[in-house]
Amino acid sequence: MLIDHLNWRYATKKMNPEKSVPEDKIAAILDALRLAPTSSGLQPFEIMIVTDPAIRAELKDASYGQAQLVDASHVLVFAAWDDYTAERIDMVRDETGAGRGGVTDQIKAYYENLKSNYVGRGADVNFEHAARQAYIALGVALAAAAEQRVDATPMEGFDPKAYDAILGLREKGLNSVVVLPLGYRADAGDWLADQPKVRRDPAILFSRVG
Amino acid sequence: MLIDHLNWRYATKKMNPEKSVPEDKIAAILDALRLAPTSSGLQPFEIMIVTDPAIRAELKDASYGQAQLVDASHVLVFAAWDDYTAERIDMVRDETGAGRGGVTDQIKAYYENLKSNYVGRGADVNFEHAARQAYIALGVALAAAAEQRVDATPMEGFDPKAYDAILGLREKGLNSVVVLPLGYRADAGDWLADQPKVRRDPAILFSRVG
Repeated sequence: MLIDHLNWRYATKKMNPEKSVPEDKIAAILDALRLAPTSSGLQPFEIMIVTDPAIRAELKDASYGQAQLVDASHVLVFAAWDDYTAERIDMVRDETGAGRGGVTDQIKAYYENLKSNYVGRGADVNFEHAARQAYIALGVALAAAAEQRVDATPMEGFDPKAYDAILGLREKGLNSVVVLPLGYRADAGDWLADQPKVRRDPAILFSRVG
Repeated sequence: MLIDHLNWRYATKKMNPEKSVPEDKIAAILDALRLAPTSSGLQPFEIMIVTDPAIRAELKDASYGQAQLVDASHVLVFAAWDDYTAERIDMVRDETGAGRGGVTDQIKAYYENLKSNYVGRGADVNFEHAARQAYIALGVALAAAAEQRVDATPMEGFDPKAYDAILGLREKGLNSVVVLPLGYRADAGDWLADQPKVRRDPAILFSRVG
């Protein structure tokens, strides 16, 4: 059950550098992430899967030295579109058409409407919107990693501009937004591993209306 | 498996108004949502669970008339903190302390550091950051609903200011960010129900580095 997976996981502070996540588990996590729903199905982001040790060492330096960047075996970098453009929306339209028997008039009208709503609205607004969609995928990826009993550490504590430079993201019109090292918890030395999981009081978090 | 749940779900366009989601399934979805990780564990949002039919009718009017608002039995409104304040961060500090044997010096220092980083950074920046955290919880809630075989329709197509007024969110320092009706798909009349699920090409979505 999902609830058991979520209770198993925690934001791992110390990964075991000797253990790599098998590729079939990485594939399962990516398959789930790809199925995450997004606004109008645009999936306005790309995911970099970084395994190269030298590049992960650079990413660590751009992440306040957090060791999970090098002790995990795979680092997922979620990079959101810097803007919605007609070209990008047309690309998704064509992919959708390919999956649904052709770009029908209905499909065409749907994406024309999206373009008239999104394109030119301002890159800042569009980037923030795209970033939120990446966070839905992050939530699903975290659940998937836990189901696979793969440890994961969602991270915002990094320098996005440095990441963008290291990974060549700006040339692709992408901005890094959140990072997810995947690996296995170390046997010892993780201050958070034995702490009780704490969440906010449901009486505060949830309100019933009606 | 999560992947099966995600393949089962779709953004339901027509719900069956005769069928209500049992409260034990709502509880399971909320339990999972509450376990979603968030930046520094702040969980900077609240969730309104709206069942009152008259209020759902008002929400429908503020959602371009989308019928799921009234045909679903429960509507989750995700409302993010409008800013990070010292009071809010202290509240989470005290809750964390209560769950971990008291507000130790280490815990105190952790939240003091958060306050010095977040408070006064600007409400707009802080709200956007809080909204992203709510989207992680949305991703987990979607997975949880699918596991419970409860249909769900994530929605951004609504008037946040109208929602805030209907639900009294501004008085609580909250802004509505995304909506999730929960119910059961209708037997007929949903144009999307029989469409193949389309997602972007993994060769575009994913890039290997290393």
